[in-house]
Amino acid sequence: MKQIAIIGLGLIGGSLALALRGLEGYEIIGVARSENTLRIAKERGAADILTQDGRAAIQQADVTILCLHPQGIVDFLKEHQGAFKEGALVTDVCGVKTAIMEAAAVLPDTVDFIGGHPMAGRETSGMAHAERELFRGTHYLLTPGEKSTPEHIALLRRMAEYLGCRDVVLTTPKQHDELIAYTSQVMHIMAVAVCDDPGLFSCRGFEGNSFRDCTRVAALDVPLWTQLFSMNAPALCGMIQRLEENLKSYRETLESGDRKRLSEKLEYSANRKRQMNLE
Amino acid sequence: MKQIAIIGLGLIGGSLALALRGLEGYEIIGVARSENTLRIAKERGAADILTQDGRAAIQQADVTILCLHPQGIVDFLKEHQGAFKEGALVTDVCGVKTAIMEAAAVLPDTVDFIGGHPMAGRETSGMAHAERELFRGTHYLLTPGEKSTPEHIALLRRMAEYLGCRDVVLTTPKQHDELIAYTSQVMHIMAVAVCDDPGLFSCRGFEGNSFRDCTRVAALDVPLWTQLFSMNAPALCGMIQRLEENLKSYRETLESGDRKRLSEKLEYSANRKRQMNLE
Repeated sequence: MKQIAIIGLGLIGGSLALALRGLEGYEIIGVARSENTLRIAKERGAADILTQDGRAAIQQADVTILCLHPQGIVDFLKEHQGAFKEGALVTDVCGVKTAIMEAAAVLPDTVDFIGGHPMAGRETSGMAHAERELFRGTHYLLTPGEKSTPEHIALLRRMAEYLGCRDVVLTTPKQHDELIAYTSQVMHIMAVAVCDDPGLFSCRGFEGNSFRDCTRVAALDVPLWTQLFSMNAPALCGMIQRLEENLKSYRETLESGDRKRLSEKLEYSANRKRQMNLE
Repeated sequence: MKQIAIIGLGLIGGSLALALRGLEGYEIIGVARSENTLRIAKERGAADILTQDGRAAIQQADVTILCLHPQGIVDFLKEHQGAFKEGALVTDVCGVKTAIMEAAAVLPDTVDFIGGHPMAGRETSGMAHAERELFRGTHYLLTPGEKSTPEHIALLRRMAEYLGCRDVVLTTPKQHDELIAYTSQVMHIMAVAVCDDPGLFSCRGFEGNSFRDCTRVAALDVPLWTQLFSMNAPALCGMIQRLEENLKSYRETLESGDRKRLSEKLEYSANRKRQMNLE
């Protein structure tokens, strides 16, 4: 039996631990520092083995999945760089990849690091909220290193399939971070910016689904997102600025009172959305 | 048996026609100009009686619900101002209220106009997409006139309850339009502005739920929303500008590299969202 060590049993790590159990040929070692987290993990049947000893776990594990906050991953790699099992696959799950791939450069050549980002999340956190079905239907993004082996990529594909992911998308750290600034980070910035409006509390009773959907992610995990935003600041700032300009363009069209121009702009944008056809 | 005439069998009117059937003491008259719409309405069993003759319908109806686009409602009120049954309740379902209440001033004193806005919608339109359950769990907003009777307000409450609405919220046209600029209109402007980004088509495969949720409403009904936005331009422009400023404030904080300040800002916004507690 080979071993998969999951370092950190928060929402994502805990969900992975629940969802990867039973993967053929592997047993799951769940690692958390907090005794309370380990107790909940035990109650919920997450992982085959639960331990506080991350170093011992990665010394034995054929696969290690780092499920800490971004800075936690950087620190863990630095502290335990020499301790991973020879020939092991090490991966992570966090939402920035350039900073993580740079941090993984400390690892010896005997370890294969492949950046990972399953595009799943909730506006909750912690092992108590972990869900076995969290990854169903989502994209699993991978940023392989120069020396990553086809066998390891194939293993991650097999894991993603077992999790119920829609597909696996191979990309580069740079492309990942630019596109994620758009599809994820700026959605979170919009959600919090909307909640900063002085009218927030007066609008109770007047909200519909578009408001619920857009602001859902505003109740975010502050330390996590402070790191994610900060570690991808240049791409994210560019994205926010383009959004500000697109909003301003709509505002100025409305202010001009030119309904024909407004209608043309809406037609253009709505057609782009239809062409995108996300379903 | 009293009669409710529904003028216009698009997504909202068609859904109302389906959902109001069986309301005790009332039969439903569905009115549409298009023969194709009437055919679909007949196939789907929307309304007890279907007709192209709106004028005849409102002459007999105890309740008339105008389910046209905003400008269509304004035009219908003007054209048929003298034709409504004496003592009738007339209401509408559109997303702006000041312009509609002003247009309803043409009605004789024998008719009671109460503005209505069930906060339901879809990114589709037409009778073919109508759903009996469209209104379940939504707020039904009402803007009574000065002379609106308690009996008519009670009747609309009974209708809203029959539709499965969460509640009925009484408001003024001015408050309605200001709050709707926030909770609905600017959500749609954000969704289209996001789709204007040059990166839209490259991001396929990198989208998660926040992107899906936020851009869902971008595939909007262009003629309808051109009217809704234009008829509420001052409130909407103010709202867009405040959003631009809140986004800029986040961008500048990110650019400054001050993580502590970023964390404080996120804490502030996320707490507001938690306090709002929409579920």
